[in-house]
Amino acid sequence: MKQDLLDNIDSPEDLRSFSYTQLSQIAQELREFIISIVAVKEGHLGASLGVVELTIAIHYVFNTPNDLLVWDVGHQAYGHKILTGRKHQFDTNRQLNGLSGFPKRAESIYDTFGVGHSSTSISAALGMAIASKIKGENKQHIAVIGDASIASGMAFEALNHAGVTDTNLLVILNDNAIGIDPSVGALKEYLTNVKKGTQKRENIFEALNFAYSGPIDGHDLNALITELERLKTIDGPKFLHVITTKGKGLKSAEENQVVYHAPGKFDAKTGELTPKSGEILPPKYQDVFGHTIVELADSNHKIIGITPAMPTGSSLKYMMAKFPERAFDVGIAEQHAVTLAAGMATQGLIPFCNIYSTFLQRAYDQVIHDVALQNLPVIFCLDRAGLVGQDGATHHGVFDLAFLNCIPNLVIFSPRNVTELRNIMYTAQLGIDFPLAVRYPRGRGHITEWKKSFSTIEIGKGECLKKGEKLAVISIGPIANTISEAIGESKYTNAIGHFDMRFLKPIDENLLHHIFKNYEQIVTIEDGTIIGGLGSSIIAFANNNNYPQSISILGINDEFVEHGTIPELMTLQELDVASVKAKLESLLLSFNRS
Amino acid sequence: MKQDLLDNIDSPEDLRSFSYTQLSQIAQELREFIISIVAVKEGHLGASLGVVELTIAIHYVFNTPNDLLVWDVGHQAYGHKILTGRKHQFDTNRQLNGLSGFPKRAESIYDTFGVGHSSTSISAALGMAIASKIKGENKQHIAVIGDASIASGMAFEALNHAGVTDTNLLVILNDNAIGIDPSVGALKEYLTNVKKGTQKRENIFEALNFAYSGPIDGHDLNALITELERLKTIDGPKFLHVITTKGKGLKSAEENQVVYHAPGKFDAKTGELTPKSGEILPPKYQDVFGHTIVELADSNHKIIGITPAMPTGSSLKYMMAKFPERAFDVGIAEQHAVTLAAGMATQGLIPFCNIYSTFLQRAYDQVIHDVALQNLPVIFCLDRAGLVGQDGATHHGVFDLAFLNCIPNLVIFSPRNVTELRNIMYTAQLGIDFPLAVRYPRGRGHITEWKKSFSTIEIGKGECLKKGEKLAVISIGPIANTISEAIGESKYTNAIGHFDMRFLKPIDENLLHHIFKNYEQIVTIEDGTIIGGLGSSIIAFANNNNYPQSISILGINDEFVEHGTIPELMTLQELDVASVKAKLESLLLSFNRS
Repeated sequence: MKQDLLDNIDSPEDLRSFSYTQLSQIAQELREFIISIVAVKEGHLGASLGVVELTIAIHYVFNTPNDLLVWDVGHQAYGHKILTGRKHQFDTNRQLNGLSGFPKRAESIYDTFGVGHSSTSISAALGMAIASKIKGENKQHIAVIGDASIASGMAFEALNHAGVTDTNLLVILNDNAIGIDPSVGALKEYLTNVKKGTQKRENIFEALNFAYSGPIDGHDLNALITELERLKTIDGPKFLHVITTKGKGLKSAEENQVVYHAPGKFDAKTGELTPKSGEILPPKYQDVFGHTIVELADSNHKIIGITPAMPTGSSLKYMMAKFPERAFDVGIAEQHAVTLAAGMATQGLIPFCNIYSTFLQRAYDQVIHDVALQNLPVIFCLDRAGLVGQDGATHHGVFDLAFLNCIPNLVIFSPRNVTELRNIMYTAQLGIDFPLAVRYPRGRGHITEWKKSFSTIEIGKGECLKKGEKLAVISIGPIANTISEAIGESKYTNAIGHFDMRFLKPIDENLLHHIFKNYEQIVTIEDGTIIGGLGSSIIAFANNNNYPQSISILGINDEFVEHGTIPELMTLQELDVASVKAKLESLLLSFNRS
Repeated sequence: MKQDLLDNIDSPEDLRSFSYTQLSQIAQELREFIISIVAVKEGHLGASLGVVELTIAIHYVFNTPNDLLVWDVGHQAYGHKILTGRKHQFDTNRQLNGLSGFPKRAESIYDTFGVGHSSTSISAALGMAIASKIKGENKQHIAVIGDASIASGMAFEALNHAGVTDTNLLVILNDNAIGIDPSVGALKEYLTNVKKGTQKRENIFEALNFAYSGPIDGHDLNALITELERLKTIDGPKFLHVITTKGKGLKSAEENQVVYHAPGKFDAKTGELTPKSGEILPPKYQDVFGHTIVELADSNHKIIGITPAMPTGSSLKYMMAKFPERAFDVGIAEQHAVTLAAGMATQGLIPFCNIYSTFLQRAYDQVIHDVALQNLPVIFCLDRAGLVGQDGATHHGVFDLAFLNCIPNLVIFSPRNVTELRNIMYTAQLGIDFPLAVRYPRGRGHITEWKKSFSTIEIGKGECLKKGEKLAVISIGPIANTISEAIGESKYTNAIGHFDMRFLKPIDENLLHHIFKNYEQIVTIEDGTIIGGLGSSIIAFANNNNYPQSISILGINDEFVEHGTIPELMTLQELDVASVKAKLESLLLSFNRS
């Protein structure tokens, strides 16, 4: 595809050499280019389509990279990447060794701040603005943040601080009334009223000392450029409220914004989604969670579902549809989600608080201080634990076992498959007197026939999956399936035993005594950080009980893992079938030799 | 002291049996009682004096404990404790086995939610309110929150959610324009304008869908009771803005609100502080931090100081006084504080982000996602690490080593004394290319002559403090002083060597090889959780290097530690001199026998 103008833009400087009247053609070409690549290579679509004009206007008006631009979350930054010299690499987006799906400092000088989790942009841009002031540098500092992200507490903290500074900060609210799912909350209703003109103009942002302007049409290049030029001349913190349409320019994406947030492959012309193969695949853990909580909530009226802004991603949407009075999307508000659940638990409800593993990092204090310290029976369903694939370093859920393990009272479970996920959910809602964290991965399991009748899981009980003669593999979570395969393929199958601890805490000491008394060699395997996780607990057990075996610990190394497909990344971490098999065999050989 | 009316109140039911006209005498007696006890027993004074009338009015109007009352933070809840049956135990406040300094569920049915960290009350009360609705119970739910706490992001998240519910929630803003230090931020300025009448009444809280009322005088019992009675009849989320004076009723406390937040002993009549002994004591770590950052910032103009609402507690106040343009109190906003620092670091500044260890739990994601992932040279000064004493379970800084250890790129240091604290600060500002966490304890060190000239600290280098023949003690942080004393007092002094790792990460492997090659027995001692801390790293090292010694790990057990003096708590955890000495001797004996 030829883009007459876009082909000549390798930097914002090139963009600025075009005349004002040519910008709308550039917008059209940029939009087409994004659609053409994402249609084939997949990725996040709707957010970037919505800010095509805004992206052009910002880079046209401001002197990037000297002026400092921070995108919140970064799903919307594809246009930014393309205009800042990455057009020719854009077809590697989210692939191993390709462009990151998010702005990333190592990738470009135009990516001033790495993002991925929401609501960091105002804090970061304010830090830059204060730095410019201290250094006596005359720069503009711009944070672009969506209406879902600005409702998160961290963004409010930053606005509250910025409002009492005299820094040159411009916050642009990209208001499309949707995050990944539709935005929620009182602030969203308020913004809607502002748009409709039913809210007085003396508003929240002015109350916080920002010079407010807007709302303006974010697809009107003329309006955007005029207003940005004007704002450039105003000192102090400024706030521009821009109304955009997520998915703008692709009819299906405008009409079905949730699906076209990240639609997979589709027809670039019609928008039609590429049909999935007819093959019956095992269900996703997410769907099993979503259908199971509905099934349980149907008979147990104390069950509550909570998600911070991920009803679709977590599949809590099924419960929200069936039991709207007991299922809550609280917005991007992980801290609130956890303490809300704690408050409910004090009144005898049974809250299932579903949070992606990586986002629970946002509510770590609330888990310790509001739930575990009070020993409240909140059930954390930690979705997307382990490596998550193309979202990359910001999103991998690899720290949870380590950061949860040191918390008293908390029980930590990782199901090996969707049946175990169902059964632990069933067990938990029967009544527990402790908080429980259940971590499970992104994507499909191995079991197609998942809807079996429930059975209870004994708390703290591990399982022997296979007996062996010499070497015991101890694992937690669905990586057990990889290990089973590796053992099955090994020429030393008989030598290798395999145990699934299931509970990191309390750990099954009886089972561990059995293992250490019967196996000469011990290997632990997990899809979390080597530091502080299962392996760490096992060597502590061995040390405390004077077992002499030295233990091989496999897991995520002490480094941030980049983006790529999950199988690619697991291979790089040597946690794929072939690597595990090779490792086990070499351990057996070296031991026999020694 | 005789309290004619108060002596007859053992519950809010008793309070409600008094006539309306007697309440002001009860208020006076309650205020006197609080002053009389805190003057002798110490504790938090100003906050509780400020809400005497509000506390009485709430318990008078609402049907506690059936109606559910949540106090934010809880410094202000002394009056609540006294009116809810704990008057006779109140002189045990904050003592070992005595009353907690904060509301605590295990202590009373009137303490509906345990608090300590700020800004949790609205989430918790909303959770309770939703529970009542689901259960069909007709209850009132009240959150009392200060103006400093409501400016924290988590409170905003809760308001944003509450505003779209139809729950029976009353948020009472106790606006005294001060937290522990004076409140900051745009919201605080806004509230000041509301009070002055210079702000339109259509306000932020109305924008968030709350029925707003106020501001009213929080020392006017009549106004309070009338308004609370009215609000009881209004459905949906309600917001009452109450103006109070922190320290109300004790002149010195009203005039010097920062000092009288927790004044130590004082004269109950005059308010005069009990003079400190003339003895020259070693300085607090906090003061060494505060004076040292000023000293360094004087010559290094890139240095920035950041505190989330603890300028006095952290002693950053010295830098705020001397270099106001480079020292920031950002309010109770740990998340923002960390990412603000990250933004500054991208522009070449050197931010020292001073956060209490326990409050860094609030910014865990920001440490991982905004700082460590981008490998930005932010210097975290983690104050009040280890056991903090009377503040108890909510405030001990015992998890930090464990939750930081799994983060890639991060360097983790714990100074043994204030000289090392000064030297690591000096070293860091010379220029580092990684994030650094420096954890140090609450209170005084052991060194009186602290202001020595700086020297650099080699990153990742531990130290031999004493050689020995058999048993090596490996420690981190100031607990080294306890251990040195224990070794010095032991009859087996010669047998015991002592090593201070100083860096948890990167750990000094050369030193560890030396230790494991030269000592038969190994003991690790730290003032953090046994799970995931120094001991955990040492057994991992021993395992990975096939050292045969079994290792004794001393530290904080896997349980929440209650309140008491630091020496009392260290003794309970068997980390005092006598316990350590006994432990080392028994290990030596048992080893010799075996």
